[in-house]
Amino acid sequence: MEALRNRILEEGQCLGGGILKVDGFVNHRVEGSLMAACGQAFADIFRETNPDIILTAEISGIAPALMTASSLNLCVVYARKKRPVTMPDNAYVSSAPSHTKGGVTPLLVSPEFLKGGERVLIIDDFLATGQTIKALADLCRQAGAELVGVGALIEKTFEGGRDTLKGLNVPIHSLAQITHLSEGVIEVAP
Amino acid sequence: MEALRNRILEEGQCLGGGILKVDGFVNHRVEGSLMAACGQAFADIFRETNPDIILTAEISGIAPALMTASSLNLCVVYARKKRPVTMPDNAYVSSAPSHTKGGVTPLLVSPEFLKGGERVLIIDDFLATGQTIKALADLCRQAGAELVGVGALIEKTFEGGRDTLKGLNVPIHSLAQITHLSEGVIEVAP
Repeated sequence: MEALRNRILEEGQCLGGGILKVDGFVNHRVEGSLMAACGQAFADIFRETNPDIILTAEISGIAPALMTASSLNLCVVYARKKRPVTMPDNAYVSSAPSHTKGGVTPLLVSPEFLKGGERVLIIDDFLATGQTIKALADLCRQAGAELVGVGALIEKTFEGGRDTLKGLNVPIHSLAQITHLSEGVIEVAP
Repeated sequence: MEALRNRILEEGQCLGGGILKVDGFVNHRVEGSLMAACGQAFADIFRETNPDIILTAEISGIAPALMTASSLNLCVVYARKKRPVTMPDNAYVSSAPSHTKGGVTPLLVSPEFLKGGERVLIIDDFLATGQTIKALADLCRQAGAELVGVGALIEKTFEGGRDTLKGLNVPIHSLAQITHLSEGVIEVAP
């Protein structure tokens, strides 16, 4: 997606250690029109997979997932990282190593909002090692729901996420692919 | 806003201790079309305040704030509760007591994305005691930005938020007002 690729090239910053800073349009400030266009792009790509619901992980997955849900006229469920007081005890729980924060992050979804048989489209901000998306897919498995696709705004192709997720046997699409990242150098696939 | 009021009456649950569970359409699952309508409602209410940017607090503020930003063709900045590795050391910091989680929650915004002179519209999910919105307003003050309005999806009128925020001297609007909340009883203003 050209608008996103251009934005990464103009504003993205490599902070070292494989960390791409895109706080100006993904992780801290979000431009309504750019994110709406990304949601529309995901909707066009995944409409034929016929999803019932969008699943993402808080925090930075919410914006692209909500815009996709809005374009497809669906609901988005965002997995929580801490159990809120309003969540029942029988929540589905999975966990993923945190790339930028260190440690392991639990992901929780209430059985109220993820049902057996539902067709689930996962949308997230990044596809890097694929561990967060793998954890979301595991929540689907626990719920007896059917994963139908995976979409990410930005993929780091050199971190092996697609290999990690190969076993899911669903289409995986990203809107921008970073092929190389080192201090001062960000390469985005055309 | 009728759609939101009806949804609260149909699906909201009072869990005691002043906690209203709206996980099915605000805090865990979000319906794209309902949230888009809420964003449009905020846009219609606040357009004349001529905001440059929308400010909210992660996590549950992101959805209504993003939909408002999308309707007004603006950016949304969501204050972070933990400092990400990508945030510079000179971030603006404020803090608010957490209603549902206990303790005090810091709110951080990078000076990169909140500038002196900007006209800021705060949009959040709840207006209860007003402490989170007060903390967001304080971030604006630190940045030298000008607060022009405050919008919340759901107001609990009996928790005193409007009094707390009176000194801000800006219009405050909520899309649904809960006037009474006790076990089994939720009253929403017509």
